[in-house]
Amino acid sequence: MNNDLKIFDELESSVRSYVRGFPTVFKKAKGYKIWDMDGKEYIDFFAGAGALNYGHNDDNMKKKLIEYIMEDGIAHSLDKATDAKGDFLEKFNNVILKPRNMDYKVMFPGPTGTNTVESALKLARKVTGRTNVISFTNGFHGMTIGSLSVTGNQAKREGAGIPLQHVVTMPYDSFVSENLDTMEYLERFLEDNGSGVEIPAAMILETVQGEGGVNAASFEWLQRIEDLCKRWGILLIIDDVQAGIGRTGTFFSFEKAGIKPDIVCLSKSIGGYGLPLALTLIKPEIDIWNPGEHNGTFRGNNMAFVTATESLTYWETDEFEKSIAEKSEKVTQFLTSLIEKYPELQGEVKGRGLMQGISTPVEGLAGEICAMSFKKGLIMETAGPEDQVFKLFPPLTIDNEGLEKGFAIIEECVKSLVATKEAVAAK
Amino acid sequence: MNNDLKIFDELESSVRSYVRGFPTVFKKAKGYKIWDMDGKEYIDFFAGAGALNYGHNDDNMKKKLIEYIMEDGIAHSLDKATDAKGDFLEKFNNVILKPRNMDYKVMFPGPTGTNTVESALKLARKVTGRTNVISFTNGFHGMTIGSLSVTGNQAKREGAGIPLQHVVTMPYDSFVSENLDTMEYLERFLEDNGSGVEIPAAMILETVQGEGGVNAASFEWLQRIEDLCKRWGILLIIDDVQAGIGRTGTFFSFEKAGIKPDIVCLSKSIGGYGLPLALTLIKPEIDIWNPGEHNGTFRGNNMAFVTATESLTYWETDEFEKSIAEKSEKVTQFLTSLIEKYPELQGEVKGRGLMQGISTPVEGLAGEICAMSFKKGLIMETAGPEDQVFKLFPPLTIDNEGLEKGFAIIEECVKSLVATKEAVAAK
Amino acid sequence: MNNDLKIFDELESSVRSYVRGFPTVFKKAKGYKIWDMDGKEYIDFFAGAGALNYGHNDDNMKKKLIEYIMEDGIAHSLDKATDAKGDFLEKFNNVILKPRNMDYKVMFPGPTGTNTVESALKLARKVTGRTNVISFTNGFHGMTIGSLSVTGNQAKREGAGIPLQHVVTMPYDSFVSENLDTMEYLERFLEDNGSGVEIPAAMILETVQGEGGVNAASFEWLQRIEDLCKRWGILLIIDDVQAGIGRTGTFFSFEKAGIKPDIVCLSKSIGGYGLPLALTLIKPEIDIWNPGEHNGTFRGNNMAFVTATESLTYWETDEFEKSIAEKSEKVTQFLTSLIEKYPELQGEVKGRGLMQGISTPVEGLAGEICAMSFKKGLIMETAGPEDQVFKLFPPLTIDNEGLEKGFAIIEECVKSLVATKEAVAAK
Amino acid sequence: MNNDLKIFDELESSVRSYVRGFPTVFKKAKGYKIWDMDGKEYIDFFAGAGALNYGHNDDNMKKKLIEYIMEDGIAHSLDKATDAKGDFLEKFNNVILKPRNMDYKVMFPGPTGTNTVESALKLARKVTGRTNVISFTNGFHGMTIGSLSVTGNQAKREGAGIPLQHVVTMPYDSFVSENLDTMEYLERFLEDNGSGVEIPAAMILETVQGEGGVNAASFEWLQRIEDLCKRWGILLIIDDVQAGIGRTGTFFSFEKAGIKPDIVCLSKSIGGYGLPLALTLIKPEIDIWNPGEHNGTFRGNNMAFVTATESLTYWETDEFEKSIAEKSEKVTQFLTSLIEKYPELQGEVKGRGLMQGISTPVEGLAGEICAMSFKKGLIMETAGPEDQVFKLFPPLTIDNEGLEKGFAIIEECVKSLVATKEAVAAK
Repeated sequence: MNNDLKIFDELESSVRSYVRGFPTVFKKAKGYKIWDMDGKEYIDFFAGAGALNYGHNDDNMKKKLIEYIMEDGIAHSLDKATDAKGDFLEKFNNVILKPRNMDYKVMFPGPTGTNTVESALKLARKVTGRTNVISFTNGFHGMTIGSLSVTGNQAKREGAGIPLQHVVTMPYDSFVSENLDTMEYLERFLEDNGSGVEIPAAMILETVQGEGGVNAASFEWLQRIEDLCKRWGILLIIDDVQAGIGRTGTFFSFEKAGIKPDIVCLSKSIGGYGLPLALTLIKPEIDIWNPGEHNGTFRGNNMAFVTATESLTYWETDEFEKSIAEKSEKVTQFLTSLIEKYPELQGEVKGRGLMQGISTPVEGLAGEICAMSFKKGLIMETAGPEDQVFKLFPPLTIDNEGLEKGFAIIEECVKSLVATKEAVAAK
Repeated sequence: MNNDLKIFDELESSVRSYVRGFPTVFKKAKGYKIWDMDGKEYIDFFAGAGALNYGHNDDNMKKKLIEYIMEDGIAHSLDKATDAKGDFLEKFNNVILKPRNMDYKVMFPGPTGTNTVESALKLARKVTGRTNVISFTNGFHGMTIGSLSVTGNQAKREGAGIPLQHVVTMPYDSFVSENLDTMEYLERFLEDNGSGVEIPAAMILETVQGEGGVNAASFEWLQRIEDLCKRWGILLIIDDVQAGIGRTGTFFSFEKAGIKPDIVCLSKSIGGYGLPLALTLIKPEIDIWNPGEHNGTFRGNNMAFVTATESLTYWETDEFEKSIAEKSEKVTQFLTSLIEKYPELQGEVKGRGLMQGISTPVEGLAGEICAMSFKKGLIMETAGPEDQVFKLFPPLTIDNEGLEKGFAIIEECVKSLVATKEAVAAK
Repeated sequence: MNNDLKIFDELESSVRSYVRGFPTVFKKAKGYKIWDMDGKEYIDFFAGAGALNYGHNDDNMKKKLIEYIMEDGIAHSLDKATDAKGDFLEKFNNVILKPRNMDYKVMFPGPTGTNTVESALKLARKVTGRTNVISFTNGFHGMTIGSLSVTGNQAKREGAGIPLQHVVTMPYDSFVSENLDTMEYLERFLEDNGSGVEIPAAMILETVQGEGGVNAASFEWLQRIEDLCKRWGILLIIDDVQAGIGRTGTFFSFEKAGIKPDIVCLSKSIGGYGLPLALTLIKPEIDIWNPGEHNGTFRGNNMAFVTATESLTYWETDEFEKSIAEKSEKVTQFLTSLIEKYPELQGEVKGRGLMQGISTPVEGLAGEICAMSFKKGLIMETAGPEDQVFKLFPPLTIDNEGLEKGFAIIEECVKSLVATKEAVAAK
Repeated sequence: MNNDLKIFDELESSVRSYVRGFPTVFKKAKGYKIWDMDGKEYIDFFAGAGALNYGHNDDNMKKKLIEYIMEDGIAHSLDKATDAKGDFLEKFNNVILKPRNMDYKVMFPGPTGTNTVESALKLARKVTGRTNVISFTNGFHGMTIGSLSVTGNQAKREGAGIPLQHVVTMPYDSFVSENLDTMEYLERFLEDNGSGVEIPAAMILETVQGEGGVNAASFEWLQRIEDLCKRWGILLIIDDVQAGIGRTGTFFSFEKAGIKPDIVCLSKSIGGYGLPLALTLIKPEIDIWNPGEHNGTFRGNNMAFVTATESLTYWETDEFEKSIAEKSEKVTQFLTSLIEKYPELQGEVKGRGLMQGISTPVEGLAGEICAMSFKKGLIMETAGPEDQVFKLFPPLTIDNEGLEKGFAIIEECVKSLVATKEAVAAK
């Protein structure tokens, strides 16, 4: 192939999207770097939208994967038992669940984020016998009808082509304003029998909303949510598809909040190498599924089990967490200094861990920063209902050099674009 | 790992299913053979529920896949352009679409069957501005809420935990009885303005219903459906996830019927090697998606593109089709002779191509045949709302020896079980 | 007022309907006659769409009503006890229920047909814990969302502005064709676990469909429906709002079929004098309502109780039934001779009792017959999804003279219109 | 009949409700007094739940009604034109609409509150092409599925037996607390494209919530709602079924707020005499109904037109408004002094006009006050999701003597019950 988008323009549906924002043909990747057909190098502050937390083509995982394929390991087996799957279960239990004192059953839904969310919603409704679910403003949970129902974004919702039902959206932490306590509001709705809102089967939320604008809920807010759920017999589902697997600093994003969700949704980086995989963690007492009650052909993606197992090695000591913390602090400092230096941004630093960004009310600016960054060799995307946030999402394994190169490109773009806007405004 | 299911029993959710019917730990596979940890060999008449039409670990695909990984090819890229994806698009167009005179845009939804179905339903509703969809009795389309709505199976529907809506189920070919023309019924519902059934956005169906009991619609019935859709401005969606990619004898299952669906759903064997991948084919004039209006993290599974591209080589000449036809004929002969030889089965041969089976009204018998076959080294599963069918689903690449070994095991089991039942009845 | 429609044109919503077909201002009525402001007399073959089965302003009821008002009887009392209500309950029990060996509890929903239907649907769902209901093609049950969901007419359904749910429409007797047994079809859907149709809470139907085209179900079909309901634990709701209270020959329209519905909906003529009233009859074992679980301000319309009580006198002997039978026979003879005499009608006689009509496929003809009849002093309306039926709906108390006058007008119009069409066709 | 509830207990469904709270058989009524079969007199602080604002059996209306019946006026005519209907339209326009500078088309849905609400919701969805509607906490709009969807009360909602959809409930004025501005919350939900709440077809609300707990929205809040609706192109529906026809002091309850709703729902007292009638007022520019698109057999209740027309005489001068204001002030003073005198009530005065009450958090107390009042000859009911309010709802035509007798009974009961509770607590 040439570095030419013709074939994509001709044959691919108009639904294609990232190829428009990053218009080149990629060929090779390693760590935090990607190269296109022309050999041009890009720094990756996007990390597969959170599916590449360990960076591209990690050598250890690569080695295990090639060995497995060479030996004619089982590639596909639905949910039959395989050694690859057994090894994963064992290591996931030993390295992740046990040390965190978490007792959960592991379910393998179809290998995508939306599939684990659909399975979680089904189970919560089955366990409680209720149909209603509470979701939160600017939550994003997937594009199939069940997950889309609990997603806030209006444009995405309209894509459903049918009214989305059985869901009530409540205000996320700080949704109305910093001063308004959204929890008081939520409580009134639950306790008042005339509120029109029945006690739901579950609440579903992300601890940091990636697509919704890099909004981080405070740990206190999360604790109050858990408390509310317990008081009313509501199941708490944490969708950790994007915020999990170290993205906010710990394996699960909710560890520091000290909560124990009833159901946890994992996907994206759980496979380690960018291969499709998803898990639904379920407290044993609510694991009341009938065999096959939710299933899917690719629910056992053995190659992903192989790399996923290897990826858990990162979590055997606390070194990895420490390094994420250090890098996160660097990002925070950079972003804070950036909004101070460029008040024209009217910027606000958002997020947590290596999931941070700047929200700017200047129309179109966040998008322009991303577009210019791409030209200068940095891959980064926007978030939020108005694409008002640019989002720094590097691999967790990135080194200082990578981070600083990325920072430099961003600052360069901000500086240049702010100046242009000033000039235009001055005329 | 040992050949021991303990870890699965302890850690995996009760939703696990195939591991119950095939209780061993698999380790290795090649062609139509699988081996477990103890080295026991199994003949595969299951083929990953249709995801392994080319058999396990095909050498050519394996070679390409290892090369790609070795060279640090892009593993994960959402819907950014990559050389692996470009190559696939080109070959798919040249080998599959063009020679069949099919003009379609290719969409990559999330890499599972349910995801392509959800995308098809969304698009049909968007294009027509209608909410209702007509599905057919015993259709199976997936387990997320949108796909589940068009699925007939009651137990699976109940798993939704919410009423499934915006769908009317019509009788599939021969649903009521061989003599009753279900099309007459369907037409009356569409033409009578008092029927309570509005003109739908789409009809969605499988040409051979795999999960629903290996029911094959006649080509005439399919033609009449297409005609009806055209007359009423209804989009026709063919879900070829299981029946496609050669399973019934041709690449698309509907080729011999001579119809041109508006939307085609592909997954399972499209990836070639058992890696997750799904495609939605869309007639250009209805490809009115907004960018990103339906998306998903794993919609670009590059490793699957690599093996998928290689798998299309099978279709460059008509040799493959011919060989499928020969094997299909063998299966038909075997099954026909089987029901003649064992009238106690009260069997009926069902299906088309290498997607055939025997339906038996003897309660539990189909399941017992599969269970006993497994012990004797054959993997085969049941289908139908009452699990009344045992289904022969070998890789399309199986050789005569494999087929005959499988036949022998099946006949052995039928003979033995029929005798047992006789003996019991005689008491 | 003058006989002038100006005030209606100016002030009334465009939703007004009968005033368009019968464009005059009515002032006075007695028996089967109505007079407008100009003193023009009309014969009434419409009977308030079935709400005036005893004709206009029956003298006995009128006397009781005036007495009640003169004595300052309670006009309005919600569902508090009043002597008027108590008297009605007693007489309804003694004259109607007991002699027919019918043991039912009486519920007073809001005083309209749609309200009794909504109450019946709610109760059936509560009793069974199921959400789905089976309705039938061309059924008409009312215009509020619950009732509209079980109504077949597409134009009326579209008025909902939301998708109508929780309902599956099955084919009414002879819907597809005279030869196709719709019951076989319905049974398959219930018995096949892959049919996509769950066992419903209830089936709801009219024994003769008034709005839907004066379609009469055979008694055998009704018996098979009842049998099916019993076998599957489905509640049977008969909507006797229009076909009941003698319209088809017996007090309840289903008496001759020998069935015992679980719930019966009554309204229209139950009040006797045209005053709003509705009843829901409920088998005692399923009368599990909580107090006030369904209610409505006007559920105790005492003036309607007064006239309703008096109207039941008609049913104390079998004279009334006999007279209806005689008149019904006259109508049948007239209609039969009419279609023989005017083959251009391509007419089919439809219906039962004093609820008969002629269906003609000649586009617009039924409507033209009604319009011309009005000019000649007869009030009559069309029915059916294409307004293809003209419907003879005289008061049950009409005398021979009235009937014959009406017949004469109809024949005159048919003759004239058929000739015009012939003449046009001949050009 | 005797004054004996046996016949009701035996024959009436368990859904009966007011007969349980007021267990006697009523026979006669005049003004604000009712008598049972034993001649016991009751003062009426209930007024037919708002359907008897002019008291029982008003002499002028009675006279007109008897004349109409005596002359064989049309009793029932669906929506054909009658002189009774024409007279009503004319006087309603001249006495009510024109002087208030209100330009509305008048629609006659079925003769109940729920029917006008269902028609309003249908029309709003038709006009805007949207499905969603915003309702408010503790709103009450009726018991058919459409109206129930916009009703807050959980027990009533559960009666639906199906999930209630296409509605989002927003907080009514002061729902969360006196200090929390619910409008800020509502605005955020509308303006944020990620809120999960689409712009609705309409907002529907009562200006004073009768069933919901006698909650009065401030005029400022109503103005802000109207403003919000205008800004976002949302239709404003005021359900004035209970609060209208003078109940809060003016003919329409929203007159003093200075707002002009797009649709107004009227029923209950619009008929004047307690006869079933309902109106939907529609701004001319959105009166886009097709003929008959919403209908109902009893949509032309001519006897109610006769009394309704006569009742409008009350509104020809401003005397009636003045007298309501004076009585309202008396009620406020009485209730205010009551909560001061009996702090044990922990009472809060609620409501507006002759629609006031006291909310008390003491469990069961409001109900006990009503029950004891009944024994002492006063009819009064509770309101609110926990029946925590006792509600003074006398006819607007009550005189001072009536009011004071009622007050005396209430105070007597409060005094006695408070003392009992004290005594119990002291033990």
